[in-house]
Amino acid sequence: MKTCITIITTCVTAALFAQSPHPHLHDRAIHFPDVSGYQTLVCDFHQHTVFSDGSVWPDIRVQEALRDSVDAISLTEHLEYQPHSADIPHPDRNRSYEIAEQRARPYDLLVIHGAEITRSMPPGHNNAIFIEDANKLQIPDSVEVFREANRQGAFVFWNHPNWMAQRRDGIATMTPTHEYLIEQDLLHGIEVANEMTYSDEALQIALDYDLAIIGTSDIHGLVDWQFNVSEGGHRPVTLVFAEARTPEAIKEALFAHRTVAWFNNTLIGREDVLVPLLESSIQVKSAEYIGITSIAEVTLMNDSDAEFMLLNRSDFTMHANAQVITLAPNTTTTIQVKTLDVLDSFDLSFEVLNAVTAPGTFPTVQIPVTVEE
Amino acid sequence: MKTCITIITTCVTAALFAQSPHPHLHDRAIHFPDVSGYQTLVCDFHQHTVFSDGSVWPDIRVQEALRDSVDAISLTEHLEYQPHSADIPHPDRNRSYEIAEQRARPYDLLVIHGAEITRSMPPGHNNAIFIEDANKLQIPDSVEVFREANRQGAFVFWNHPNWMAQRRDGIATMTPTHEYLIEQDLLHGIEVANEMTYSDEALQIALDYDLAIIGTSDIHGLVDWQFNVSEGGHRPVTLVFAEARTPEAIKEALFAHRTVAWFNNTLIGREDVLVPLLESSIQVKSAEYIGITSIAEVTLMNDSDAEFMLLNRSDFTMHANAQVITLAPNTTTTIQVKTLDVLDSFDLSFEVLNAVTAPGTFPTVQIPVTVEE
Amino acid sequence: MKTCITIITTCVTAALFAQSPHPHLHDRAIHFPDVSGYQTLVCDFHQHTVFSDGSVWPDIRVQEALRDSVDAISLTEHLEYQPHSADIPHPDRNRSYEIAEQRARPYDLLVIHGAEITRSMPPGHNNAIFIEDANKLQIPDSVEVFREANRQGAFVFWNHPNWMAQRRDGIATMTPTHEYLIEQDLLHGIEVANEMTYSDEALQIALDYDLAIIGTSDIHGLVDWQFNVSEGGHRPVTLVFAEARTPEAIKEALFAHRTVAWFNNTLIGREDVLVPLLESSIQVKSAEYIGITSIAEVTLMNDSDAEFMLLNRSDFTMHANAQVITLAPNTTTTIQVKTLDVLDSFDLSFEVLNAVTAPGTFPTVQIPVTVEE
Amino acid sequence: MKTCITIITTCVTAALFAQSPHPHLHDRAIHFPDVSGYQTLVCDFHQHTVFSDGSVWPDIRVQEALRDSVDAISLTEHLEYQPHSADIPHPDRNRSYEIAEQRARPYDLLVIHGAEITRSMPPGHNNAIFIEDANKLQIPDSVEVFREANRQGAFVFWNHPNWMAQRRDGIATMTPTHEYLIEQDLLHGIEVANEMTYSDEALQIALDYDLAIIGTSDIHGLVDWQFNVSEGGHRPVTLVFAEARTPEAIKEALFAHRTVAWFNNTLIGREDVLVPLLESSIQVKSAEYIGITSIAEVTLMNDSDAEFMLLNRSDFTMHANAQVITLAPNTTTTIQVKTLDVLDSFDLSFEVLNAVTAPGTFPTVQIPVTVEE
Repeated sequence: MKTCITIITTCVTAALFAQSPHPHLHDRAIHFPDVSGYQTLVCDFHQHTVFSDGSVWPDIRVQEALRDSVDAISLTEHLEYQPHSADIPHPDRNRSYEIAEQRARPYDLLVIHGAEITRSMPPGHNNAIFIEDANKLQIPDSVEVFREANRQGAFVFWNHPNWMAQRRDGIATMTPTHEYLIEQDLLHGIEVANEMTYSDEALQIALDYDLAIIGTSDIHGLVDWQFNVSEGGHRPVTLVFAEARTPEAIKEALFAHRTVAWFNNTLIGREDVLVPLLESSIQVKSAEYIGITSIAEVTLMNDSDAEFMLLNRSDFTMHANAQVITLAPNTTTTIQVKTLDVLDSFDLSFEVLNAVTAPGTFPTVQIPVTVEE
Repeated sequence: MKTCITIITTCVTAALFAQSPHPHLHDRAIHFPDVSGYQTLVCDFHQHTVFSDGSVWPDIRVQEALRDSVDAISLTEHLEYQPHSADIPHPDRNRSYEIAEQRARPYDLLVIHGAEITRSMPPGHNNAIFIEDANKLQIPDSVEVFREANRQGAFVFWNHPNWMAQRRDGIATMTPTHEYLIEQDLLHGIEVANEMTYSDEALQIALDYDLAIIGTSDIHGLVDWQFNVSEGGHRPVTLVFAEARTPEAIKEALFAHRTVAWFNNTLIGREDVLVPLLESSIQVKSAEYIGITSIAEVTLMNDSDAEFMLLNRSDFTMHANAQVITLAPNTTTTIQVKTLDVLDSFDLSFEVLNAVTAPGTFPTVQIPVTVEE
Repeated sequence: MKTCITIITTCVTAALFAQSPHPHLHDRAIHFPDVSGYQTLVCDFHQHTVFSDGSVWPDIRVQEALRDSVDAISLTEHLEYQPHSADIPHPDRNRSYEIAEQRARPYDLLVIHGAEITRSMPPGHNNAIFIEDANKLQIPDSVEVFREANRQGAFVFWNHPNWMAQRRDGIATMTPTHEYLIEQDLLHGIEVANEMTYSDEALQIALDYDLAIIGTSDIHGLVDWQFNVSEGGHRPVTLVFAEARTPEAIKEALFAHRTVAWFNNTLIGREDVLVPLLESSIQVKSAEYIGITSIAEVTLMNDSDAEFMLLNRSDFTMHANAQVITLAPNTTTTIQVKTLDVLDSFDLSFEVLNAVTAPGTFPTVQIPVTVEE
Repeated sequence: MKTCITIITTCVTAALFAQSPHPHLHDRAIHFPDVSGYQTLVCDFHQHTVFSDGSVWPDIRVQEALRDSVDAISLTEHLEYQPHSADIPHPDRNRSYEIAEQRARPYDLLVIHGAEITRSMPPGHNNAIFIEDANKLQIPDSVEVFREANRQGAFVFWNHPNWMAQRRDGIATMTPTHEYLIEQDLLHGIEVANEMTYSDEALQIALDYDLAIIGTSDIHGLVDWQFNVSEGGHRPVTLVFAEARTPEAIKEALFAHRTVAWFNNTLIGREDVLVPLLESSIQVKSAEYIGITSIAEVTLMNDSDAEFMLLNRSDFTMHANAQVITLAPNTTTTIQVKTLDVLDSFDLSFEVLNAVTAPGTFPTVQIPVTVEE
């Protein structure tokens, strides 16, 4: 029977990887380029398994992350909400983390220890990640639990402040409790994107109260189904700009607010963090004038998964586009710029309509073009 | 907190269905037409969840079945192999069935109570379905457990007799134990297709020993990944030709051997069951002669998910095809038949190369064509 | 040999239509909805064949139009540029029209008689359509030819004023000649979109000088290749809002400036003409509040080929989108509007970023929403 | 005006190539591997333009060939059928060739001088290629014209002997005239595949009378439409196995009957020519046993555009397939072979169902497998 066990385990792993090679596996990998000085890490810090109210064993979360090319995940089981307790009466709240961490070991996937503090509003639901012991977070007092998480060195963020089950109007709203937690440095981030929702009001809170901008899948079922991956959809994630691909570096970056949320083809972030990402993502590959004309053909490489919608704010009009230019992901697009005179170099300037730095505010990228002789 | 629970449950269900509508959801539905006198039911009688060595909660199996348009499922947890027992120490072996049955209730999905008797070879692994109480099957004696299953009225089939963990050569081979079980009418079927494998030798055993022909997914992970569903793959299933869409009618059909296994675009079945399915699947939509010629244009409807490969065995040659004609699934294909004279009616005859009635034997379909005037 | 001819002709027609059914033929049909009081007709008034410098016989232009669901075409051969004259020395400049008109007769396709007056700049190239006799337009004087065209009742428009072969900087620029022609009512329209190019400056000229806004393919080779039709591209056309589907009604609409150019997923037109088209294209299918929330789920139908990029200018923020919403063509999209209170009705307001009413100016649509009870 | 002409010409060429890059251009390239000692050249020796009853200028045929990666084309205008003579009264029957040859010069495309001798049956239509002067083939006598073609060194083949306009039953039938032409060595090949049709009877004639096996598009309209290229279709061609990529080498190969017709995913050829092509197309990439089993995992590379349908004739059964294995084009497929014992090497044997060597006869390929240690 011992042999049998080993073989079965082998078969399951093989099944998930070798026996059913997905020809377009790479297509779903979430990709954004590094920015100067930092690695761009794809992180999903809010997920559930059967160890709270999710529908999968932790190994599926590991497989999903590998398929999506996610760098770091956190399985943040509800501490106070355990609908499967009749079947999984286990009292150890670190179990989900332990299983995932062990399953992730053969791969290059970081598993961050986390938990979801699940309260009525305020303070609502909050995730503590980079914790040491989830069991110790089982504290009834809604402020004390934050203190314990911080004692463990946690980064703590406010989950779905726009959640309709706790906010009937879907409007993220600051509360005295949250103000107190922020004042005490017990709360450090806020989800502006959670599962299928985005919140302009949460973004404004992040900016007003100096919180890290976070996007997460909050997945309970299957990532493939929830985000329609086979049709090109993607889960919300937080892009973290870290000095290294380590848990420590991610944590440092989170506390330094070097994050961008990636939700439904939209990038949400502080201007000083988001603009460098955009400028890394959109690069000039070549530029030359057509024949004897003063029309420059400029080939732009979009080295990212975003389909960019660019509103022309340059001094020049275009020869093959009206005001808006679309850059398909992970490929080049050639535009024709009417520069009036033949120039050695010039600047392109675009408002990026699928990026947000504040409610109703789009970032602008400057793209210097040097013409080939 | 009670309100919270209700709302969360609602949200998860919504997530799986309403919030993420898959635009091609219908594409993955497994479809074969009814045959005269019977409904063609799509059944997958071999699946696992976290309640044995699978990686999902039973609700995912229900969702997968609904997405695949499966009519009946059975969650056949290993009775003797419980790798998650550290976390799920539950002694009730009916639990997986109960959860699935409750989750399936709002939909039109049949859940058949089953369990996998998991032994070394012989008798290897065997599934008992239509059981009353899985707990009572925890009997060490390898024959006694079959008797108990039969006492409960079970239909019992031999799983993956070609499994390389128990047969290094992958060759399904009859054993005295199985001969005894069959003789005693304790074993009624055999898997000719299991997960990623097919066995010619298992098919021969089915024919020689008068066993029902079964195909199953034996899914442990996710159906979508294992069978590459987004690229057009499908799980192996058993097509059951039943008098009604009820558990009783399915059971009757299984004991009567009215089954066809559907595996990797191949239909495997007894000739008297398979040929009617093929003839229901391929129907003449129209036939007329081109102008003043004796070349008949015949439009065939393939009302099934199979991509048929037909080898022409008619008396006539074709005008737009060589010997082999491919009929894409769920659509019409027009062929041109050179009938030499202008006829009122004629017969087409094709060997169906992606169908098997015995090792190395393809069924032949006769298609009577009446020409429109 | 006579029989042979008939049969060959039949075969060719069959080949183009019946024998090679394109399964996605409908996908390439250019579709926009009618607007109140008018039929929306898809027109391409600038095309070439072997009868000037094109590479196809006129029948191919008819087939392309049928495949693209174009309502009216004009084959506007260069009067003065005849590179195939060594092989086609025919002096009758009406020939291209005659062949196309005869080939179009069995179908519901309008062929408008036209010709391209091909001069150096000024006046550059200009198309005269709705002419009676192209031969009579062979007049050396660059103003006299316009007078003759007008004498025949023609609608005349300025072709590609941005053409780099005549404007090295690609900037459409008014000339005294054109001012004179307009003043004399001899020139009535201007191409803002031609083949692969768009011109903001041409649009400004149209507005400043009260000219009809025109978009054309100016096709010389194959529409399928030039505009990458199999990958979803489309030829530039002029949408004409006509009182009937007749040449007369099209002519009336052109003189009345009821046109929108459709180029590379961008709609270009006068605000009073374009906004009604947008409001016909985007319609509310359903609207209801989610449970007990004040979040309204609104399903919008995009009944057009445009992939709309909408910038939210409503009083409300969205629950599942940031500022920009994309409406895929010919399908519905559901958005979630946070209306703060539960309302009986409210207005949505969007700036349409892939539509242009003047250089740098996007039209705004108001969409009244009535909530279902 | 001279400048204008140059610029227009440049623009048209650019339009066909540079300005509209087809992202999947390579997908339509017709590809088959070389076979030992020969280059595999893709040839289409039967095409029409406006210079007889086609609908395009010769430059389109050049562009189509470049897009399809065809190595050699012949524009075989009807000598006796000139439906465009009212517009193209040109008496020089070499004109079509001259234009194409000039247009092909910048590219690596061979243009073979040819013409179609267009008679009633017998001898029906016949193509003479590698001619010197088409004008000299305007000879009323139906045998004399063959003599003249041969005097010029032509390779002559019988076109569509199954053409329903000349054979109401679509059955290619030998005639005394053809027997005489063959006897006199004036006729050297026969089309077994023409446009949308295939003829088993023509193949039998090729074998019985020792004629080269030819497949052609006989295109009159557009290749893209006729053969549904954007949906994966391809034009019929003749694969010629030549010692060099030159007209001379192609002619030598034709006379030596080293050809295979490629029609609608079917390869038609003499066994001694076809089997080497199949064995070049299907190659073993790797082979190793799975763990401690005697099941060998064999990865086959299909280095061709054919989707092969293989019927297993090996001594072994398969672990993941029934009798028929499909090899998708231009990719690898892994099969699992149950070799009973662990072997150092073994042979696979497949009947290739989408290949034909004689009516109703499929070739068999032997694939030697050496197992990696």
